[in-house]
Amino acid sequence: MQTIEPIEWLHGKIRIIDQSRLPHQEVQLELAGYEEVAEAIKMLRIRGAPLIGIAGAYGLALCAQSIEIKSRPRFLRELHRIAEALASTRPTAVNLRWAIDRMLATTETKRDIAAIKSALIIEARAIHDEEREATTRLSRLGAALIKDGFTVLTHCNAGALATGGYGTALGVIKAAREQGKHIDVIATETRPLLQGARLTAWELRRDGIPVTLITDSMAGHFLSRRKIDCVITGADRIAANGDTANKIGTYTLAVLANENDVPFYAAAPLSTIDRSLPSGDRIPIEERDPEEVTCIQGVPVAAPGVRAANPAFDVTPHRYVSAIITEHGIARKPYKASIAKLFRPPQTRTKGGSSGRS
Amino acid sequence: MQTIEPIEWLHGKIRIIDQSRLPHQEVQLELAGYEEVAEAIKMLRIRGAPLIGIAGAYGLALCAQSIEIKSRPRFLRELHRIAEALASTRPTAVNLRWAIDRMLATTETKRDIAAIKSALIIEARAIHDEEREATTRLSRLGAALIKDGFTVLTHCNAGALATGGYGTALGVIKAAREQGKHIDVIATETRPLLQGARLTAWELRRDGIPVTLITDSMAGHFLSRRKIDCVITGADRIAANGDTANKIGTYTLAVLANENDVPFYAAAPLSTIDRSLPSGDRIPIEERDPEEVTCIQGVPVAAPGVRAANPAFDVTPHRYVSAIITEHGIARKPYKASIAKLFRPPQTRTKGGSSGRS
Repeated sequence: MQTIEPIEWLHGKIRIIDQSRLPHQEVQLELAGYEEVAEAIKMLRIRGAPLIGIAGAYGLALCAQSIEIKSRPRFLRELHRIAEALASTRPTAVNLRWAIDRMLATTETKRDIAAIKSALIIEARAIHDEEREATTRLSRLGAALIKDGFTVLTHCNAGALATGGYGTALGVIKAAREQGKHIDVIATETRPLLQGARLTAWELRRDGIPVTLITDSMAGHFLSRRKIDCVITGADRIAANGDTANKIGTYTLAVLANENDVPFYAAAPLSTIDRSLPSGDRIPIEERDPEEVTCIQGVPVAAPGVRAANPAFDVTPHRYVSAIITEHGIARKPYKASIAKLFRPPQTRTKGGSSGRS
Repeated sequence: MQTIEPIEWLHGKIRIIDQSRLPHQEVQLELAGYEEVAEAIKMLRIRGAPLIGIAGAYGLALCAQSIEIKSRPRFLRELHRIAEALASTRPTAVNLRWAIDRMLATTETKRDIAAIKSALIIEARAIHDEEREATTRLSRLGAALIKDGFTVLTHCNAGALATGGYGTALGVIKAAREQGKHIDVIATETRPLLQGARLTAWELRRDGIPVTLITDSMAGHFLSRRKIDCVITGADRIAANGDTANKIGTYTLAVLANENDVPFYAAAPLSTIDRSLPSGDRIPIEERDPEEVTCIQGVPVAAPGVRAANPAFDVTPHRYVSAIITEHGIARKPYKASIAKLFRPPQTRTKGGSSGRS
């Protein structure tokens, strides 16, 4: 099985898999400027909260190399302008802003422009490596929650394609499978952009994990008939109290899971947690083109002129979230305390409490 | 505004609107034999629980005319064979079986074949007329539940297209509008076959009622943000205790409505109530071709070979149903008593209790 590399740094270019064309075509694109990176993020050629963080970092590193300005302050002004353009492409996933901020911070201690340029490349690669490591680690921790013989429901795509290469929700499933457990997956198609049908089903089949595709509207039926043992999704932004923004439809699955006494887990690296927001009600929800609803893969499904709404994310209140799986441990309620603990140095983190392995 | 006539009896033929081609093409079909009627029902050219009951009745009347057998018992055997073939086309909506049984009952007192043949036509027309009258009446009763300024969420299509001509869920909305109330509708697209996007949005726009289309996965978001005042759907079969089978996704909407303290109403004529079933767990759930999930309007959305499930209906336990709107009144909990009361003669029905107008 060939590993999926959703993004690669090729000194002077960024190579991505164009996810908007999967599964019908496996096309790689080389992005050479920030407009191309911004376009790829906006059009969901690269998507998934951890991956767009990595893409933003590489995008900024790439663009920095071609800034010809000799004055350090003017160079940094231009760099900040590009950073802002990249960060504003998608407002909900906090990983993008987190990565851009981390990239900009690295410039502060560097005296000359050449040093800044090379520091940005080093930092972007570090972000990629650390995020890949974080998702691999959280997947192994989370696998403890998945028992042999489980049928797991997942939504959208939180797999290798959504991250630096291992996955969050699908990473947990993959790690459970690598532990020798037999796992069945039910994947929602995830309208409007069908990441479940196009990406998750494709990725799980590549990994040899049995998957059954359903429409988003069928999840409740299978939960109520006790066909699902747990629900696991990724996350785009988690507030300090555990409220979790993720792909539209996630809130619905969490409510349905809760109603049927099935655990609902969110799996995400710490870069997805936004401790500056006390709760989820201030997470910005991206509203996308209504045509994504009125057309499917370019084919109109509604009569001309029909109005549509298209919020791309929703917020699941923390009371519906059974656990948050991170690379520093599994946080449980009350989340304010358990999430704060995830960010403490390792020696204080592992002492008791609800954020350790469980 | 031209009235929608989803089905018409033209002595010797049945004329239908081919709903599988809406809204892109408005095509009428003439069905001349029971295989054509059965095909039209199976392929959802005619759909909606009340309408397939009417179609089954007309189909049987039509086929009876061309049976050449002279012996009454052998004629009836052939009629029953055709009746069975029609009734088995779709197992969940009870209206089809109800209409076929009523048609067969009408043959019992008729001595000669000519009398049976003409009685079947009279009975089919009576079923059509009574069902149209019932949905018009239940719509006016139900309109009392819809206040001026309400935003109403509906699922699938329970409009003129699903009935003898007025609608159930959409009939209630239309009747509220005719009472001068301003109503906004949010319509779910209703995957897999997109009856919401294709039919409900089209029908409401024809009626001049403002409608916003959403994917099925977005309903929870709008309910949790208090953008919806009530949810109203049709029904395919209601058990004696109020458990309600309807288009896949309805259970999810009922749970979400309940979780957000928003009323959930089912609107259906009495022909949809199956008093032979004490609860919903024995309602047969039609499983349709997985290709309806893996392809959208013929365009594949998943990789080749991806497995899919496709239950066409789900069952909403009665505890989530705030009221059942029928032509004999609005039933509320406890449903066992209030539903039984709907079937009593009028003078005993209207005395107090929970099944009167409210």
